[in-house]
Amino acid sequence: MNTIVARFKIIPGKEAEAEAAITKQAAAVEGNEPGALAYIFNRNLKDPSEITVFEVYADDAAITAHRATEHMAAFAALFGSIFDPASVKIERHERVAGFNR
Amino acid sequence: MNTIVARFKIIPGKEAEAEAAITKQAAAVEGNEPGALAYIFNRNLKDPSEITVFEVYADDAAITAHRATEHMAAFAALFGSIFDPASVKIERHERVAGFNR
Repeated sequence: MNTIVARFKIIPGKEAEAEAAITKQAAAVEGNEPGALAYIFNRNLKDPSEITVFEVYADDAAITAHRATEHMAAFAALFGSIFDPASVKIERHERVAGFNR
Repeated sequence: MNTIVARFKIIPGKEAEAEAAITKQAAAVEGNEPGALAYIFNRNLKDPSEITVFEVYADDAAITAHRATEHMAAFAALFGSIFDPASVKIERHERVAGFNR
């Protein structure tokens, strides 16, 4: 189980565009990527400008496929106008134990 | 959807105990807490001593129930002998968009 945890901040004033872009991206991943097992955008309650994405993929091939999708290209093209690129932190994780249902 | 992201580090040399405690805790949550929708222990690939727990609950009542369980008390009692209490960081998040399946 391959997990990516990505964090980034919304540019002040771009909250509505951020929510629209996030909602569209999540729906596109759900509809087109069977290898994506979870793709969750969270807002940090202490700092609502900070978004954390929790992404779980079945395997490395699913990550490669994710990166090559049209919706990922569209999200990347919009990214810098909505989110602060300097705030991006990406981590790779592997599951030790647990479940989702 | 209420999410908790908890991070902490394994005390060097306690890796086997950590994996056993984590596996036991995840199984107890899965078996006894219907309000826990995800409970995933991840290892950071860049720093395998760092554990991130991604916990999704149906509502606040499920979080209150989680904290009152016997398995949580047992995990907490063991915690300081396996993990570094000074390393603990806990965040509360709310879901903006996304899915798990």
